[in-house]
Amino acid sequence: MFPKNAWYVACTPDEIEGKPLGRQVCGEKIVFYRGQGGKVAAVEDFCPHRGAPLSLGFVRDGNLVCGYHGLEMGCEGKTISMPGQRVRGFPCIRSYMVEERYGFIWVWPGDQALADPAAIHHLEWADNPEWAYGGGLYHINCDYRLMVDNLMDLTHETYVHASSIGQKEIDEAPVTTRVEGEQVVTSRFMENIMPPPFWKAALRGNGLADNLPVDRWQICRFNAPSHVMIEVGVAHAGKGGYHADAAHKASSIVVDFITPETETSHWYFWGMARSFKPQDAELTNMIREGQGKIFGEDREMLELQQQNILRHPERRLLMLNIDAGGVQSRRIIDAWLAREQPQPQPQEVAA
Amino acid sequence: MFPKNAWYVACTPDEIEGKPLGRQVCGEKIVFYRGQGGKVAAVEDFCPHRGAPLSLGFVRDGNLVCGYHGLEMGCEGKTISMPGQRVRGFPCIRSYMVEERYGFIWVWPGDQALADPAAIHHLEWADNPEWAYGGGLYHINCDYRLMVDNLMDLTHETYVHASSIGQKEIDEAPVTTRVEGEQVVTSRFMENIMPPPFWKAALRGNGLADNLPVDRWQICRFNAPSHVMIEVGVAHAGKGGYHADAAHKASSIVVDFITPETETSHWYFWGMARSFKPQDAELTNMIREGQGKIFGEDREMLELQQQNILRHPERRLLMLNIDAGGVQSRRIIDAWLAREQPQPQPQEVAA
Amino acid sequence: MFPKNAWYVACTPDEIEGKPLGRQVCGEKIVFYRGQGGKVAAVEDFCPHRGAPLSLGFVRDGNLVCGYHGLEMGCEGKTISMPGQRVRGFPCIRSYMVEERYGFIWVWPGDQALADPAAIHHLEWADNPEWAYGGGLYHINCDYRLMVDNLMDLTHETYVHASSIGQKEIDEAPVTTRVEGEQVVTSRFMENIMPPPFWKAALRGNGLADNLPVDRWQICRFNAPSHVMIEVGVAHAGKGGYHADAAHKASSIVVDFITPETETSHWYFWGMARSFKPQDAELTNMIREGQGKIFGEDREMLELQQQNILRHPERRLLMLNIDAGGVQSRRIIDAWLAREQPQPQPQEVAA
Repeated sequence: MFPKNAWYVACTPDEIEGKPLGRQVCGEKIVFYRGQGGKVAAVEDFCPHRGAPLSLGFVRDGNLVCGYHGLEMGCEGKTISMPGQRVRGFPCIRSYMVEERYGFIWVWPGDQALADPAAIHHLEWADNPEWAYGGGLYHINCDYRLMVDNLMDLTHETYVHASSIGQKEIDEAPVTTRVEGEQVVTSRFMENIMPPPFWKAALRGNGLADNLPVDRWQICRFNAPSHVMIEVGVAHAGKGGYHADAAHKASSIVVDFITPETETSHWYFWGMARSFKPQDAELTNMIREGQGKIFGEDREMLELQQQNILRHPERRLLMLNIDAGGVQSRRIIDAWLAREQPQPQPQEVAA
Repeated sequence: MFPKNAWYVACTPDEIEGKPLGRQVCGEKIVFYRGQGGKVAAVEDFCPHRGAPLSLGFVRDGNLVCGYHGLEMGCEGKTISMPGQRVRGFPCIRSYMVEERYGFIWVWPGDQALADPAAIHHLEWADNPEWAYGGGLYHINCDYRLMVDNLMDLTHETYVHASSIGQKEIDEAPVTTRVEGEQVVTSRFMENIMPPPFWKAALRGNGLADNLPVDRWQICRFNAPSHVMIEVGVAHAGKGGYHADAAHKASSIVVDFITPETETSHWYFWGMARSFKPQDAELTNMIREGQGKIFGEDREMLELQQQNILRHPERRLLMLNIDAGGVQSRRIIDAWLAREQPQPQPQEVAA
Repeated sequence: MFPKNAWYVACTPDEIEGKPLGRQVCGEKIVFYRGQGGKVAAVEDFCPHRGAPLSLGFVRDGNLVCGYHGLEMGCEGKTISMPGQRVRGFPCIRSYMVEERYGFIWVWPGDQALADPAAIHHLEWADNPEWAYGGGLYHINCDYRLMVDNLMDLTHETYVHASSIGQKEIDEAPVTTRVEGEQVVTSRFMENIMPPPFWKAALRGNGLADNLPVDRWQICRFNAPSHVMIEVGVAHAGKGGYHADAAHKASSIVVDFITPETETSHWYFWGMARSFKPQDAELTNMIREGQGKIFGEDREMLELQQQNILRHPERRLLMLNIDAGGVQSRRIIDAWLAREQPQPQPQEVAA
């Protein structure tokens, strides 16, 4: 169950560089490509001629050409031409609103009449030279909501990521969850603790001592349909923690776009945006590599959790205080899902 | 949906060299082997003792021996012997008419009473020292009819095989389709064009200049149930084209036997028969290698086309003029299928 | 169909060395580990918090800790603690009786109230310094009863294992099957034959001439639910055969524990116990390697036999004299299965 009337991250620009990309989003098989003037476009990955996947074709003069028999498809889903054919009567295929923004390609897989690019999740750090971003993409075989749960409850870092960002103090620190309109915020603050390996490296990367106690914070923000941005960081202890001056801390935003593929699989776009040493490409690579390894550790756990849940659909899972972030996020998802249900017609009054 | 009362290519002699071969044809699990006197035989791949696959056994004195407990099976599907057992009451398994001809093993998977070896598709070039043949086998995960469509509409060469046999002039040239009894013929002639890379190499292989304009032809012939023979060639322009003297042309027959395995998979026996330099084994290998690479290019397209069609069974595909070869071929297949339906009994006249 | 109220071999001690092991037995997903004081324990592989697999966790102070969020599970299936949580109301998960004995971990996957460790199959050679044991584990995709059939009818050695233990004399020798209570015994004796390669090597390993005729025996004993112990050996001919003095023979016990995983897959624990040169670790390894190769030869046959049977559920397989061992074993299994059916309530007498 996923809302379809929503903006999801579909891919990154490098994935449609020079050739179309076929990808399933929210159950829709879609081909993404650069159309006229380099503008991104997306249509059904189904040639109206014989059902071939258009994603195996190529782009010529801004139009998608089927790689089987040369049908030329327009970005509106209407056939433009085909060698030796009159195409006026050809059936149309679906086209999808897409938008390139903040370094991502966004798609609206649902009712196209409702798509408003102004509703795309705003990223204040993107397109800002004082920030740097590095990230990657994983395909995960579980319901996207299990990933939302995962990211809205970081106590799992202590266990799943014990050798990098995990530390005992995380699950000892109290967690606070609050709902602000359609945003869920779960936060945790730890004071005067030793930084774990990942943060030691980040402190060094920022030219700071890594052998001093720090104050550490994690502020997870869920936005529908399934975006989780996490402010994370450490500051030398006693310098103001989250509010410390930039000279005393290493901080960043963990960026998570979780795009459903099917009911039990999703595309996980992960990354990190940081405001220290933004020009340092080597540091960006080092962080991406470390983060990629860390996020890979979640995969086996999530995929086997999914299998367990499918085996026991009757079992109610626990909803503890640490799960509040995921629970509240699912409530917002459920509200979005409810809005997509057909509205019941008002009943006529019996005479 | 495939006719079962038909001769299909099951395998090539090298595949049953020294050991039995298990292969599914038209939904039937069959074991092929050399029986008495080297004559090919085929029975169900199911030992009547405990259901073991007979194809894991071996041939002894022309009889198939089960590799599990030594039951000896005759080519009629009747158990001959088993160590320490009386086998008279053992249940029979199905046997299949098989025939070795033209370098292929042919099988009739349907009603054995109807099998007539005289009906095997005649190959005029086979067993002829003036011709050479080279070919291979691919397993393809799609309905065999999608492969028939593919081969009866060569406009796809322009797109799928752009670097070898494709060229823009193919889909610019008009195509003609005619039905001659139970044969469908689709032909296309191109005049005064430059040969694409594959044909340049064939011209050189035949000792002809490869930098001159040529006339090119493609004549596809479908015969039920699913054989497609394609006369292809180029002649130096103005020398008579298809009818040019052998000294001015390089021509051959693309040989395609398409044998259904299941409803959505088939065995694709592809090859090329040529009448120039038939003794040149190196040339045979070069052509086979080039052709194998070309035919491998169709696989991804066909398999993803199949998936798209399975996702959207309600969609009607287009039937354009270029599709006429496939459309007419399917009509003949449909007629064969109709003949296999149980005949309705004449209704008694009500008194 | 497998009895669940029975002791099965679940794993070997090395498999739970230092970390938990997740394994499915008789349809139950179970995690095995060393609990308090090194005692083996087994609970459902399902964390009551969010359904994560406990087998991805670790053992701390004898308790299983979930690797996702740190829930601490007791060996009775009751949560002991979780960081920052009161766990009293947490739902319990199933726990399973397990017992470490004879070098194996045994589990009772059914009704725990009926589990009696005294009923574990006795191995008279285990824990005996005059005997040595070596073995391994294969995962096989077929009904466990096909493996029972396989082991209770060794005529297959002639065919499946022709190059090691098979020889023509096996299926020429008569076989005797008798039922002794809940044990089925199938035996075969061959006199004055040449030993096949495996037994030549065993004779040499035992310091005996390998180029003399021998008497050979195979005595297969099935015990419910699915254990097959096979006394096998050769003695120099005329020295008393099975009863010959140890100085004239090489003999051993083939050990087979066949543990159902699903209806069509099982865990096959195979090995050999021998009473000659028990301290010779190199000989143990050599035998294990040879036996592993031999038992691997059965896999393809059994898995394809399973597929054939699934394709033709309506076909009755033959039950010959050589199959009597398997047939009788299945009767005992069926009796065990019948005991697990709910008892019909006595009907009330209508007034």
